[in-house]
Amino acid sequence: MRRSIATVSLSGSLPDKLTAIGAAGFDGVEIFENDLVAGPMSPEEVRSRAADLGLSIDLYQPFRDFEAVPPPVLARNLRRAEHKFAVMERLGATCMLVCSSVSPDSVDDDALAAEQLHALAERAARHGIRIAYEALAWGRHVSDYLHAWRIVRAADHPNLGLCLDSFHILARDVDPYAIETIPAEKIFFLQLADAPALPMDVLYWSRHYRCFPGQGDLDVAGLVGHVLRTGYDGPLSLEVFNDIFRQAAAMRTAQDAMRSLVALEEAVDHRLDRTSRPAALSKAPSPVVPSGFAFAELATPDTEALGGLLTALGFARTGVHAHKPVELWEQNEARILLNTGSPESQDGPVLGAIGLESPDPAAAVKRAEALLAPVLPRLRAPEDVPLDAVAAPDGTELFFCRTGHPDHPSWTGDFSQDPGEAGTGEITHIDHVALTQPWHHFDEASLFYRSVLGLRPHESLELPDPYGLMRSRAVSTEDGRVRIALNVAYVGAHDGAPDVAWQHLALASTDIVTTVRRLRDAGAAQLAIPDNYYDDLEARYDLGAERHRLLRELGLLYDRDDHGEFLHFYTATTGRVFLEVVQRLGGYRGYGAPNAPVRLAAQYADQGGRRRGSRSRSS
Amino acid sequence: MRRSIATVSLSGSLPDKLTAIGAAGFDGVEIFENDLVAGPMSPEEVRSRAADLGLSIDLYQPFRDFEAVPPPVLARNLRRAEHKFAVMERLGATCMLVCSSVSPDSVDDDALAAEQLHALAERAARHGIRIAYEALAWGRHVSDYLHAWRIVRAADHPNLGLCLDSFHILARDVDPYAIETIPAEKIFFLQLADAPALPMDVLYWSRHYRCFPGQGDLDVAGLVGHVLRTGYDGPLSLEVFNDIFRQAAAMRTAQDAMRSLVALEEAVDHRLDRTSRPAALSKAPSPVVPSGFAFAELATPDTEALGGLLTALGFARTGVHAHKPVELWEQNEARILLNTGSPESQDGPVLGAIGLESPDPAAAVKRAEALLAPVLPRLRAPEDVPLDAVAAPDGTELFFCRTGHPDHPSWTGDFSQDPGEAGTGEITHIDHVALTQPWHHFDEASLFYRSVLGLRPHESLELPDPYGLMRSRAVSTEDGRVRIALNVAYVGAHDGAPDVAWQHLALASTDIVTTVRRLRDAGAAQLAIPDNYYDDLEARYDLGAERHRLLRELGLLYDRDDHGEFLHFYTATTGRVFLEVVQRLGGYRGYGAPNAPVRLAAQYADQGGRRRGSRSRSS
Repeated sequence: MRRSIATVSLSGSLPDKLTAIGAAGFDGVEIFENDLVAGPMSPEEVRSRAADLGLSIDLYQPFRDFEAVPPPVLARNLRRAEHKFAVMERLGATCMLVCSSVSPDSVDDDALAAEQLHALAERAARHGIRIAYEALAWGRHVSDYLHAWRIVRAADHPNLGLCLDSFHILARDVDPYAIETIPAEKIFFLQLADAPALPMDVLYWSRHYRCFPGQGDLDVAGLVGHVLRTGYDGPLSLEVFNDIFRQAAAMRTAQDAMRSLVALEEAVDHRLDRTSRPAALSKAPSPVVPSGFAFAELATPDTEALGGLLTALGFARTGVHAHKPVELWEQNEARILLNTGSPESQDGPVLGAIGLESPDPAAAVKRAEALLAPVLPRLRAPEDVPLDAVAAPDGTELFFCRTGHPDHPSWTGDFSQDPGEAGTGEITHIDHVALTQPWHHFDEASLFYRSVLGLRPHESLELPDPYGLMRSRAVSTEDGRVRIALNVAYVGAHDGAPDVAWQHLALASTDIVTTVRRLRDAGAAQLAIPDNYYDDLEARYDLGAERHRLLRELGLLYDRDDHGEFLHFYTATTGRVFLEVVQRLGGYRGYGAPNAPVRLAAQYADQGGRRRGSRSRSS
Repeated sequence: MRRSIATVSLSGSLPDKLTAIGAAGFDGVEIFENDLVAGPMSPEEVRSRAADLGLSIDLYQPFRDFEAVPPPVLARNLRRAEHKFAVMERLGATCMLVCSSVSPDSVDDDALAAEQLHALAERAARHGIRIAYEALAWGRHVSDYLHAWRIVRAADHPNLGLCLDSFHILARDVDPYAIETIPAEKIFFLQLADAPALPMDVLYWSRHYRCFPGQGDLDVAGLVGHVLRTGYDGPLSLEVFNDIFRQAAAMRTAQDAMRSLVALEEAVDHRLDRTSRPAALSKAPSPVVPSGFAFAELATPDTEALGGLLTALGFARTGVHAHKPVELWEQNEARILLNTGSPESQDGPVLGAIGLESPDPAAAVKRAEALLAPVLPRLRAPEDVPLDAVAAPDGTELFFCRTGHPDHPSWTGDFSQDPGEAGTGEITHIDHVALTQPWHHFDEASLFYRSVLGLRPHESLELPDPYGLMRSRAVSTEDGRVRIALNVAYVGAHDGAPDVAWQHLALASTDIVTTVRRLRDAGAAQLAIPDNYYDDLEARYDLGAERHRLLRELGLLYDRDDHGEFLHFYTATTGRVFLEVVQRLGGYRGYGAPNAPVRLAAQYADQGGRRRGSRSRSS
């Protein structure tokens, strides 16, 4: 299938948008009229620039408020259309989008609409132009695609067909099944957008919150399946209006868009039977789902503080890297690297890299590469064990590993063994990592982990932070062996607001009471939880006096869901990083989100005077 | 009336909130439970801190999901309430907010709800506590205040009354008139919030978009009038959940809140008749509405570029300041000061100050002071004519002047006369000024101009910018002699995005064709408008070939509304500032907003390589 995108989906000037769209590998583009009108490039220059980038101009859009109007308005509208046909000829565009009217001039008269659209198509034909009529979800008289189809059928002109748009159909909950009754040759164009389920008016929702397929809650793949079953072979074209994409870098958004289309085509492919599946659907290598965490790497200026903390938690240093200032610390299957030599080390500690256990590291990299993830050099030094690694959208390095597998070189081969044995305490493995995302890449990040790694996105949460709101969404494997919490903090617009791009690493303990006592006995710093929290916990839950006393005494936090209970605590923050220790009792599935505001307030209190003079939302 | 505010309305830690609330002059505070629970201050410490700041604790809130539940749930809920009563006794709080239940445990049974609320009130009474029951707009069974009142009346306990909340009542369009049927002694508390008219689900709207009274579209003053007619004499208390206030500095938000309450009390006072007006309503001095612009002052590193531009537009330099490096330039009633000596001059040109013609400058300052605006020193130098000036929220200095009035010292007295005469060209006066606001102070700014200067706010617009969205709202006098456009640019989150805190000064011309020709003849730089704009203008309007040709040739932009037509053009930008020349034909009321995207794109194109490496939303 041809892949296309509307210029309105990206930020910047028209030439910048075209460059980004070409670089991301799209085949075509919809020219959004305002992008042309506001810029200095002539239509001929746009045509030639697009051709140089290998992009066809698949659609000119939108033409508004045309049909079902009194004769004087019709004359004005036809005059307006002729001007636009002239621009399209200069652009070399042969298909124009006409949206169903929202004008108070229009009347509710399908026959009149059909007659006037026929007249428009007749004029368009003289210029070799086709008209794609689209039912806007908020159209004044025509707001669903079947209504638009009745009008197009009645108008009966070869240059008049439909434009279908997943948002307009799915946002109004119109049944998309009947698309299959429309002949393919009357579907001139297919526009695709997703959106998160938000309880608001459809026009407001559309203008601000659309997103790329796979980033929202609409069944875009199901809709595309219906369209393809008709035999439609035109472009799959993304058209997204989104407050954040408007501000983000066009190159990144274009890549995010392409990733979305590839994943969408796969999802469609899974749903189609052999006979209705177009040969041209995506052939990217399948995702290779990771089976666990191999390690987490912390870049740090020195190992003293973190080494002490890890020792207090029951870890032991078991190796040092052969050529680099990297230490390996282990406790059962939990492995942490302390790196004092990476470029980020001086700003650290920061969580710079994650190792993921993969059944096929090379295939995992191929998958990531097909989805436009930057692949990192396989060898960090000539003597190293080769590594398969890519960069996540926030810059975190993801390594695909087969730790200690006989058929595969293990990353642990780079480490000379220390005399010490791995710790054998209650901490068994890494439960999850939490990464702070730049606010304008949050949806990109969740789509990245979903499409590249095959992780499952969970519910998106908004948590109150004393200085703003924190948006949080976890992605995980089905079995929970890999869990990544993606956070974005809309925090602190003003001078003197705190700096909070925190990351953390959560370790699973089979006996958190022993772990926290071990930490305290070693004199390591635990995040202090206020007494008020425990007073409130006693009001909310009756856990028995003894258990309440223990939680309060040990500074443990508590949560429960329908599946089980959750105990956890935090260490003090060092650099951008803190550690969490968690114990899941029963089948608890969450991350202790109700306790996040308490944790955040305690961290701010702890941070005290360490505030920056000026902060931005984008850090 | 006592003035109170809920801690949830402000950003930061509980002690920071209390400090800000006390400093802004409030009498009391609602303690939002989460603020207490998450912080390290004990209830006793909060009580003592509030007392030190002169704040009473008027409400503890919220207690959720209590009533109309099966017996085992009731037992749990009463246990929970006892814990909270204990906290309230430590706090010294005697009124608790109970919100109507949203729990699936609750049943639709008013008699049961009344019985259980009676039981709760009975227990509360033993602690000297009163229960204020509030109908949440999204309550499961109880969602309007009259329903809540029926239950409270049936429960019939002296310690049970109502909490009324303007948002919950007005957001659901429930008629507030019947409030007057409720006895004053059964209205325990009144919470106030406004909200902009946004088409979305009421819960989502409430959580993210509430604002202070006067910043939104709800008739909060009308509602307060109904409440006061009952004889209610409890606190007027603000309770606002807002994504932006969560991030803004608490001190500023508290001042903004107080300004809102003072203006609200005035609005209420105007609507009440003498008998129902409480003596304690606001007695701030009345606003003194300005009658025009006296001058605009541009801070600039040197006068060469701007002086040349002003000359090209027909201005003449008519004076220099007696003691400071400030020049006066005049053309008819349009007066511009070029200041090379102010602290901002080196970053300039920037629009640093505005002079407003005022019928009573001293009274204008008193009004501003009563509304917590920072008053500037009256004398900038000992020899100067005394000036009455305050700072607007974005830092712009506002001077109240009586230019050339016999009974008042005129600011022009500081200027020695140059030999030159004032320009007598087509530019007659300042049409408007446009000021870019920090994004987290936009609502504060519009309330400031409304309440301090008595200007009328116009519709809030969202305009597409190539790199984001621009929000724009004008405030003006009824006669349009003073017009100020407040803009905020949500633009460019990423590295390499443009820097756009532009300000501009729009000059009114009686013959814009002559003005633009004069500018061009002088070789001064005009912002280039692309040909595509004129192609589109011809498609949209049929103005006749000659007029279209003239607009295109002279780079003039065009707009029309129901009242008239608008012609305008822009100069190139220098520093943060550009000039606009406008001609209003007929009674055109707008500011050419449909042309803003074209102007912005042209300015970005003009700005070219002048982009900063890194930008924030907050600049």
